Amino acid sequence: MIPSKKEPPVAYNPRFSTGNEIIMTVEFSQRRSVEQVEEGTVLAPKFDADGLIPVVTTDHGTGEVLMHAYMNAQALRLTIDTGEAHYFSRSRRVLWHKGATSGLVQKVRELLIDDDQDCIWLRVDVSGGASCHVGYRSCFYRRVPVGSSDKPVELEFTETEKVFDPAEVYGDAPNPTRL
Amino acid sequence: MIPSKKEPPVAYNPRFSTGNEIIMTVEFSQRRSVEQVEEGTVLAPKFDADGLIPVVTTDHGTGEVLMHAYMNAQALRLTIDTGEAHYFSRSRRVLWHKGATSGLVQKVRELLIDDDQDCIWLRVDVSGGASCHVGYRSCFYRRVPVGSSDKPVELEFTETEKVFDPAEVYGDAPNPTRL
Repeated sequence: MIPSKKEPPVAYNPRFSTGNEIIMTVEFSQRRSVEQVEEGTVLAPKFDADGLIPVVTTDHGTGEVLMHAYMNAQALRLTIDTGEAHYFSRSRRVLWHKGATSGLVQKVRELLIDDDQDCIWLRVDVSGGASCHVGYRSCFYRRVPVGSSDKPVELEFTETEKVFDPAEVYGDAPNPTRL
Repeated sequence: MIPSKKEPPVAYNPRFSTGNEIIMTVEFSQRRSVEQVEEGTVLAPKFDADGLIPVVTTDHGTGEVLMHAYMNAQALRLTIDTGEAHYFSRSRRVLWHKGATSGLVQKVRELLIDDDQDCIWLRVDVSGGASCHVGYRSCFYRRVPVGSSDKPVELEFTETEKVFDPAEVYGDAPNPTRL
C-alpha cells in the first residue's frame, strides 16, 4: 500500500507536463440568470475573486470525503477533458495534477456541480488508496466530539495508521500547510 | 416529504433565536506549529480573511454530498455545542441555523476536520430529506460529463423530482444565488 516515489524532488512543485499536448475542448458559458444557473443544463461555473472554485473530492466506492481543494478554470477544463483530477494549489500557486508526484492519481468517476455552480463534487477512484499529504487515506482523519464540554476540545483520530510515509514520497519539499 | 412552512417571511433571513440561551463552552486553540495542527489532538481551526471556514455536508446514511457552505467561529461553536448544523450565509451576511425556516434541520452525527484544520466535514441526518434551497435532496443534482467533447458542455440532471416546492417553503424571500 505504500506508493513508490515516482519522481525526484519536483515533489510539492509538480509542473503540469502535458498541457501543451491537450486541445482544450471544454467551454464555459456566461452566467445570465438565476434560472439558467440553477435549473439549466449549461455549464456556467462561478470562480471567486481569486479565480478559484472549491472542490469536494469523495471516494467513489465508500463515499468518504478524501479532500477539499480548489480548481482554477484551467484545472476544471483539464479534469473534464482528461478524467483525472487537477487542482490549483493555493500554497504553491501552481496547477496541480494530483498524483504527479506521489503516484496517487485520482480517476474521476463522476463530476457534479452544485445549484449556483460555485462548487464541484468529484467522485474518484484513487490509485494507492490515499489522498492526504500527511499520509492518511482521507484528509479528514480527526473527529471533533459534538456536544462535548471538554475545554479545550480533544480531537479523536479516526485513522490510526498512515497509508504512506510522506517523507519517503515527498522528500524535503515544503509542507503545504500554512499557520 | 414536503416540509411545512414553519415561519412567516423571516424566510431567507432567519435570525438565530437561541444565542442568548447558550453558554459557549467550545474553545479554539492557537495555531502554533504544522505538527500541532496536522498531528495533534487540539482543535485549532483556520478561518480565512473573511473569518470563514468551508464546510462539506454529507448524508450520514448514503454518503451523498448535500451541500457546501461556510461557518464563522460562532457557527462552528454552535454546531459543536448543539449538534445541529449552523452556517454563516455569505449572501445574507447572517448566522444561519439550517432548517430554521424550512424545517429541514441537519442533525450532526459526526464532525471531522481536515489535516491543516481549514475545512470541516459534517455527516448529518436531515429531517425532511432535503438540503438544497432549489428543492432537491442535494445541491449537487447535475452531472458534468467527463471526457465529453460537447461544446458547450451539457449538464445531466441526477435528480428528476424536487422534494419540496421552494416557493411554498421560502415564500418571496430573495434567492441566495448570485450571478
